Amino acid sequence: MRFIARVEVSLRPGIADPEGATIERALGALGFDGIASVRAGRSFQVELDATNKEEAQSTAASLADRLLANPIIERYEIEVTELS
Amino acid sequence: MRFIARVEVSLRPGIADPEGATIERALGALGFDGIASVRAGRSFQVELDATNKEEAQSTAASLADRLLANPIIERYEIEVTELS
Repeated sequence: MRFIARVEVSLRPGIADPEGATIERALGALGFDGIASVRAGRSFQVELDATNKEEAQSTAASLADRLLANPIIERYEIEVTELS
Repeated sequence: MRFIARVEVSLRPGIADPEGATIERALGALGFDGIASVRAGRSFQVELDATNKEEAQSTAASLADRLLANPIIERYEIEVTELS
């Protein structure tokens, strides 16, 4: 079966986020009011074959740990859906 | 009321994605089997004040259009949740 794993990688709370801070300032200059904070991250869509959803989930977690995220400063969330 | 808008920006289908292609090759070298494709994107968490969820959604769409995404080559998805 084929699955899509969406891996969203974001900085851990407390880690400085210069990209987010820059966007926050730019939004103010563009006239957007009421923006409290912006945090920037990365996202990945991985299409993979697995025998079931659990296996797809654990493969995605393993590749996030080993390649997509730096666990010292980043955390990740995974959402797996089956491709019809 | 305060909301969190998650904006996920990804390349449109057909637009070359060298970062995703590089990750795909690296995963093969790391021994991951069954990876069909990898697409890389960016994600943003915007905390904002609005009078209701619809207003938060439309503000997030407007800042995605104007600042976060390049609509020529990218598309975006927005998910708004109310902060308790």
